[in-house]
Amino acid sequence: MSAKREARRKKAYRRRRPAIGAAPGTLVFPPGTTRLNVIRYDREQLLERADVGIDELPSIVRPGQVTWIEVEGLGNEGALRRIAEQFHIHPLALADIVNIGQRPKAESYPEFELVICRMACARNAVEFDLEQVSIVLGREVVVSFHEGGRDVFEPVRERIRRGALVRSMGADFLAYALVDTLVDGYYPIVESLGERLEGLEEEVSEAPKSALLRQIHRVRRELLTFVRLVHQQRDAVGAMMRADHPQISDAVRVYLRDSYDHAVQISDVLDTFRDVAVGLMDVYVSTLSQRTNEVIKVLTILSSIFIPLTFIVGVYGMNFEHMPELHWRYGYYLTWGIMVTVVAGLLYFFRRNDWIGGRQRRPAHEDERRPGKGVD
Amino acid sequence: MSAKREARRKKAYRRRRPAIGAAPGTLVFPPGTTRLNVIRYDREQLLERADVGIDELPSIVRPGQVTWIEVEGLGNEGALRRIAEQFHIHPLALADIVNIGQRPKAESYPEFELVICRMACARNAVEFDLEQVSIVLGREVVVSFHEGGRDVFEPVRERIRRGALVRSMGADFLAYALVDTLVDGYYPIVESLGERLEGLEEEVSEAPKSALLRQIHRVRRELLTFVRLVHQQRDAVGAMMRADHPQISDAVRVYLRDSYDHAVQISDVLDTFRDVAVGLMDVYVSTLSQRTNEVIKVLTILSSIFIPLTFIVGVYGMNFEHMPELHWRYGYYLTWGIMVTVVAGLLYFFRRNDWIGGRQRRPAHEDERRPGKGVD
Amino acid sequence: MSAKREARRKKAYRRRRPAIGAAPGTLVFPPGTTRLNVIRYDREQLLERADVGIDELPSIVRPGQVTWIEVEGLGNEGALRRIAEQFHIHPLALADIVNIGQRPKAESYPEFELVICRMACARNAVEFDLEQVSIVLGREVVVSFHEGGRDVFEPVRERIRRGALVRSMGADFLAYALVDTLVDGYYPIVESLGERLEGLEEEVSEAPKSALLRQIHRVRRELLTFVRLVHQQRDAVGAMMRADHPQISDAVRVYLRDSYDHAVQISDVLDTFRDVAVGLMDVYVSTLSQRTNEVIKVLTILSSIFIPLTFIVGVYGMNFEHMPELHWRYGYYLTWGIMVTVVAGLLYFFRRNDWIGGRQRRPAHEDERRPGKGVD
Amino acid sequence: MSAKREARRKKAYRRRRPAIGAAPGTLVFPPGTTRLNVIRYDREQLLERADVGIDELPSIVRPGQVTWIEVEGLGNEGALRRIAEQFHIHPLALADIVNIGQRPKAESYPEFELVICRMACARNAVEFDLEQVSIVLGREVVVSFHEGGRDVFEPVRERIRRGALVRSMGADFLAYALVDTLVDGYYPIVESLGERLEGLEEEVSEAPKSALLRQIHRVRRELLTFVRLVHQQRDAVGAMMRADHPQISDAVRVYLRDSYDHAVQISDVLDTFRDVAVGLMDVYVSTLSQRTNEVIKVLTILSSIFIPLTFIVGVYGMNFEHMPELHWRYGYYLTWGIMVTVVAGLLYFFRRNDWIGGRQRRPAHEDERRPGKGVD
Amino acid sequence: MSAKREARRKKAYRRRRPAIGAAPGTLVFPPGTTRLNVIRYDREQLLERADVGIDELPSIVRPGQVTWIEVEGLGNEGALRRIAEQFHIHPLALADIVNIGQRPKAESYPEFELVICRMACARNAVEFDLEQVSIVLGREVVVSFHEGGRDVFEPVRERIRRGALVRSMGADFLAYALVDTLVDGYYPIVESLGERLEGLEEEVSEAPKSALLRQIHRVRRELLTFVRLVHQQRDAVGAMMRADHPQISDAVRVYLRDSYDHAVQISDVLDTFRDVAVGLMDVYVSTLSQRTNEVIKVLTILSSIFIPLTFIVGVYGMNFEHMPELHWRYGYYLTWGIMVTVVAGLLYFFRRNDWIGGRQRRPAHEDERRPGKGVD
Repeated sequence: MSAKREARRKKAYRRRRPAIGAAPGTLVFPPGTTRLNVIRYDREQLLERADVGIDELPSIVRPGQVTWIEVEGLGNEGALRRIAEQFHIHPLALADIVNIGQRPKAESYPEFELVICRMACARNAVEFDLEQVSIVLGREVVVSFHEGGRDVFEPVRERIRRGALVRSMGADFLAYALVDTLVDGYYPIVESLGERLEGLEEEVSEAPKSALLRQIHRVRRELLTFVRLVHQQRDAVGAMMRADHPQISDAVRVYLRDSYDHAVQISDVLDTFRDVAVGLMDVYVSTLSQRTNEVIKVLTILSSIFIPLTFIVGVYGMNFEHMPELHWRYGYYLTWGIMVTVVAGLLYFFRRNDWIGGRQRRPAHEDERRPGKGVD
Repeated sequence: MSAKREARRKKAYRRRRPAIGAAPGTLVFPPGTTRLNVIRYDREQLLERADVGIDELPSIVRPGQVTWIEVEGLGNEGALRRIAEQFHIHPLALADIVNIGQRPKAESYPEFELVICRMACARNAVEFDLEQVSIVLGREVVVSFHEGGRDVFEPVRERIRRGALVRSMGADFLAYALVDTLVDGYYPIVESLGERLEGLEEEVSEAPKSALLRQIHRVRRELLTFVRLVHQQRDAVGAMMRADHPQISDAVRVYLRDSYDHAVQISDVLDTFRDVAVGLMDVYVSTLSQRTNEVIKVLTILSSIFIPLTFIVGVYGMNFEHMPELHWRYGYYLTWGIMVTVVAGLLYFFRRNDWIGGRQRRPAHEDERRPGKGVD
Repeated sequence: MSAKREARRKKAYRRRRPAIGAAPGTLVFPPGTTRLNVIRYDREQLLERADVGIDELPSIVRPGQVTWIEVEGLGNEGALRRIAEQFHIHPLALADIVNIGQRPKAESYPEFELVICRMACARNAVEFDLEQVSIVLGREVVVSFHEGGRDVFEPVRERIRRGALVRSMGADFLAYALVDTLVDGYYPIVESLGERLEGLEEEVSEAPKSALLRQIHRVRRELLTFVRLVHQQRDAVGAMMRADHPQISDAVRVYLRDSYDHAVQISDVLDTFRDVAVGLMDVYVSTLSQRTNEVIKVLTILSSIFIPLTFIVGVYGMNFEHMPELHWRYGYYLTWGIMVTVVAGLLYFFRRNDWIGGRQRRPAHEDERRPGKGVD
Repeated sequence: MSAKREARRKKAYRRRRPAIGAAPGTLVFPPGTTRLNVIRYDREQLLERADVGIDELPSIVRPGQVTWIEVEGLGNEGALRRIAEQFHIHPLALADIVNIGQRPKAESYPEFELVICRMACARNAVEFDLEQVSIVLGREVVVSFHEGGRDVFEPVRERIRRGALVRSMGADFLAYALVDTLVDGYYPIVESLGERLEGLEEEVSEAPKSALLRQIHRVRRELLTFVRLVHQQRDAVGAMMRADHPQISDAVRVYLRDSYDHAVQISDVLDTFRDVAVGLMDVYVSTLSQRTNEVIKVLTILSSIFIPLTFIVGVYGMNFEHMPELHWRYGYYLTWGIMVTVVAGLLYFFRRNDWIGGRQRRPAHEDERRPGKGVD
Repeated sequence: MSAKREARRKKAYRRRRPAIGAAPGTLVFPPGTTRLNVIRYDREQLLERADVGIDELPSIVRPGQVTWIEVEGLGNEGALRRIAEQFHIHPLALADIVNIGQRPKAESYPEFELVICRMACARNAVEFDLEQVSIVLGREVVVSFHEGGRDVFEPVRERIRRGALVRSMGADFLAYALVDTLVDGYYPIVESLGERLEGLEEEVSEAPKSALLRQIHRVRRELLTFVRLVHQQRDAVGAMMRADHPQISDAVRVYLRDSYDHAVQISDVLDTFRDVAVGLMDVYVSTLSQRTNEVIKVLTILSSIFIPLTFIVGVYGMNFEHMPELHWRYGYYLTWGIMVTVVAGLLYFFRRNDWIGGRQRRPAHEDERRPGKGVD
């Protein structure tokens, strides 16, 4: 078990960071290689090349056209340093790009705008990764960095190839398109979390099991982390939208506002989910108390009925020489009569206190009244 | 059950959104048709036409008069695109209008103001829908979009026909009148939620049943969602009020402040409701603990009385040859005497610990002192 | 019961509002009449007339003097409309005045300042009403509106008659004096709530009864509503103090700051009360758990002692032919010996686990150490 | 008991306030007398006089020197009114000074700055008072008002006598010195509260007693009130620091920043304490549940073992004529064998479920790992 | 035990402060000595000297070069006063430096910027200290003060020796490098806390022991204190970044933004941890309730089965003369038949209520679905 836990821990604290006290901008390169894909376009022309050599880069960029350099994999230190050099990327910005695990943010540097995002990738039905994607928006150039493996930007490439709106806009619009794609990528995760919460809600009031408790706690914890990242992503988009940067035109700010709006919507829904998860824990505890109450009621009813009876029959099990009742003709039947009376009295008491019967009086279809379902 | 849940889920996540990475402004049209109703008026004249063809629109708008185009149903892509074209509606605004499920908001575009609202429609005694209504306020023109089915704007049309204040004001006043009608439409929902909460409050302290628990959780969850939407709607009205837009005159801002004020009032009441719902859960759990405590007390009292007695009669049920008491003349009666003493002692102990008697000493009418009822 | 509840509900949702979609400024007049009292004064002169006819009003107002028109009862539509006309009260302001149940607020209109307040009136020892009082501050005129029945402004009238400071100040000071009187009227309610909380605190740790639980929940709920209103009232006074309005002089702003300060103090105390009420619920539940724990301990101790004994005597109640112990001379006494040993062992176990004895070791006067009582 | 409660209530609501609707600036004088002490100094000279007559005051103040008038006791109405007159203290300011129980605040008046503080005085080991001290800072004059009895300003007087820094600074520095002394006076209370919390923390996990519960609730309540006052005091110092007042020089603002810093530190520590107190309540409830769980486990184990045995011996206590087992030679021993087997089985079940044994496996010294102790 | 507690208390309240009412800037010197290390550098030259005498200081500082004076140990009053004099350190700043235990903050003085930080030092696997480090940034000089013992600045010295970027920047960059080193030093503590939380999470759902409860409470308390310090540290770095101070250049502000960013990231993670710790307490209580519920269920099942049986066998243990059943040939076997029927009925009831069986139906590997692990 501890090996598994160790592995999980390693994943959870993936933030790579240099040794404490290291010079600012110190890079901790992950293993692996670096692969460059380039798309260069303007309204008429389109050049698309995969796996470009680092030495070809300077010759590819051409004034008047937008160049998108997609850097896959952060393992080739030399290549990354040369890219940084060519596009005047500040050492601290390069450090944020390479030392993955940064919080989403948008930072203005004199020559470029750096946007750190998180890409949500579903790993399977309930698991998801949030990988760092860094976007550097310079004059007529966008450089995007990610660890590779997954390709979420294919739809954007497709739109460029189709000659859509993006072809007639500048590099800022391309950067927006990338950010927007990443933000929209959160929707499936949100929906999956919503479904899991709904499932838990149904299960929890049916039967409070301890496995359920662990699941509620886990969902709550994931929500905490996810909410935090989405808030940061939202603020990053907001900062980009409001950035006082000549490279971002007012036309693109309108689009960024749309993207910001999506991020706000997602973070609002997640805030609600978080409150629902807290409520679920309350429902769990309450349902459990209800169950315990019912079990104790059964115990009390059974004990209350049979303990006095057992005493009565115990009395006539005594071996005293002088016990007149033992010799009465109908003593035995009289004892039964007393016992029936006692039981009847107790049953009356229990019913008056609503302990037995009446438990099912509230009609079952009551639960089917589910109002407000149209609310998203 | 899972089919029903599936259906519910579908309803709950009604937000329509394009594929991830799709171009901004991608529209996902709902099935169905689109129907246009037009009202054009100034102080003297009034033209009202239902089911106008899309081709007639350009000829209907007339300078110096206010034109209100009501778009019912969002299914006709061509019609919507032509409306957007004619009134210079930005593709992103059209996307917000068509891809329903947006959060309420007010956004300024250079040529128009877009206000996304939610319309509250009671479905039955406890259920309600919150459908998206989008309002585009341009120069001398208001275009309102909704999915149709319900008509909440009839009172506004009636006021226009009657020649009320709205006839002597501009398009901005008409937009305000629509928003105000939608905000006021929240009051019945708020009252219905308040009544449900009061009902639950009464039931919960009478008998904590698990059906009640589910209902409390559900009301709490609905409140969470509703509060979120009302906050957003409030902020949308506030943003509209403060919008630096030439199309909104200062005279109308005074009216918008009134509408904003209503939204603030509603959201304040809902915040209180949310706290009350949390308190209800506490009361539920506490009442349940109280019940459990009482059941256990009964068990303990009965057990404490009869278990020692059963032991005593057990002693004299033993079959030892040499048990002097068995041969005493009044041994049997003596045994009864001991048992009565034991019971009396236990009853004294229980009464001293307030376990029996005194439970009803607090007068029942205590509960009738309900202060602060005049508070709204 | 449902009739009573219905009546309560009616009271609770007293907010009067027009039909949804009604024109802004639609008035819903309460039944009853309207009575006008007028006081007109300057430094030298004072005119006081009760029950003035609506037609006399225009002749009463005199430049250079402050006129206070007190409107009691909002039932006479014609009279209210004529007052609004004479003093140029905006239709929306009149709607806020007539449709009672508005939240406290201060709103600037070009010609006057509207302040909506709530008047706290103790109904009896624990009940209080919060009725709407609306104050319109114009040039040299103050019009106050309330539903009537209670007269909290008599002290202000008395001060005017006595020729106090108010006589040498303008209409703005009179408006301040009215607001200040209303704010100070909250103190008795706050003190009464504080006393109820203290009483509950004492009772709750003595005996957690379910009637107590209902009372805690009710106080909490009342606090929620009252806190909300006081916050709004505080903000209203603050808005009035900061209002950029020529009718409010700087000298009066100093006085308004004093009034604002009182409102802040009250709302701070209430915030503390609210936290205390939440704490009370925790104490209730904890005390209940403590009680349940003690009851179960008694059950366990008694059962643990007698159940093994009952088994032992049961053994020798068996009727086997071949049971050597039964024929031993001192078998019976030996059995008693065993039983005494078992009981002694169990008692030792219980004492070691602190289940019996020692419960009262903490001295009772410990509870008398009540620090921090000097804190208000 | 009610007399004591009444007395406590009187203390708790010490805020003195005039009748509702009274004129602003109405004073409610406490009983007692007023005593004036005066210190006048500049860099060279020092005059110190105790118990100065009210008529001598005008002659004592001398331009070019700082005069500190210490007013002890607020009972002499005439004297206070004459002081107010001489130093042009606004009636509202005097009302705040005399009607003690005001929240800490700093208010600018045209001719002076009024600072309301609370002085923390330890009454005994766990009790403390928070008495109002009002400081009026005018040109070259500081008037401090308090109810008297305790003298916390002696260190300041001592510094003046010693000719420390204060002698070479103006009246604003003296006002700062007084405020700073009062703020620093909170530290012992904070430490005492911290120690009480630590003590409770230790006791609560040892034995959850109901006396402890009351103490936790009381500490929590005191913290609520104290935190509120400290926040207000902090804001008062901050307002004084930022006040746009010619009487406060920039050099003194640096010192006020230091005082503000202390207030922030204290309020931060108290916020942490408040969270700790909430956590303590949780620990209390949890520990109690743990105890109840253990008690019930003992009951269950004992009952589970002996109830089946009692049944078995009951079977052979039956008096049927035809019971073959009774006549078997080793029936009695066989019965014992069965009973031993049953007990062994049950013990195995309990151990497998971790109900018995293993409870003490976690080493006791685990609790001694107390990390983070260096954190203040 | 109390001695240990006393010692802990002493540690916990390490804040040294002068007597209340003492003059501002009063210093409370800790015991010990003071040791000075000096590094002076520019782009070409480097002078490094350890244990410099206080008299040599003035001669070491040289215009055009950056001088870093590292003061280890705060025990030598004379030395500290002379340093303060030489570098014009304000008495209040010196007080903040010497009276350790100050909250992290950045304060601008006319001639220098004072930054108070906390240095996180792991004491062992779970313990850590947070010692005060004070940094004074003047023109071309940085003076750092700490109590000594630990040397976290060696990496910075190493970078200076290596001739890294720091050599070509001013004193502001050196101050940044020191602050950045301290902030990065929080990461190991954060990770250690994260691991402890994960460990507790696993243990708590396995077996809720009271030792665990104490540990959760302790982690929660440590988090509260640590979060507070990190928030203050974050704000201190933010204040330094935004400080309107000529000594901090825009180039260095970019680096400070990076450091601020790290502090924000750490404080965000800690906020999440705090919520997780609260959730852990909930899980603890819920798991405990679950256990109690199971124990009670076992008790109820066993009691419910054997108590009726014991009654039945008790009936035929009675000694009445006239009991026909006792003489029936198959009475004994019939009794067994009845008893088996009763047990079967009860088992059916328990199974229908899901009390027995089915408890393990949820597959164990369910728990292995751990989604969202990629989230940091």
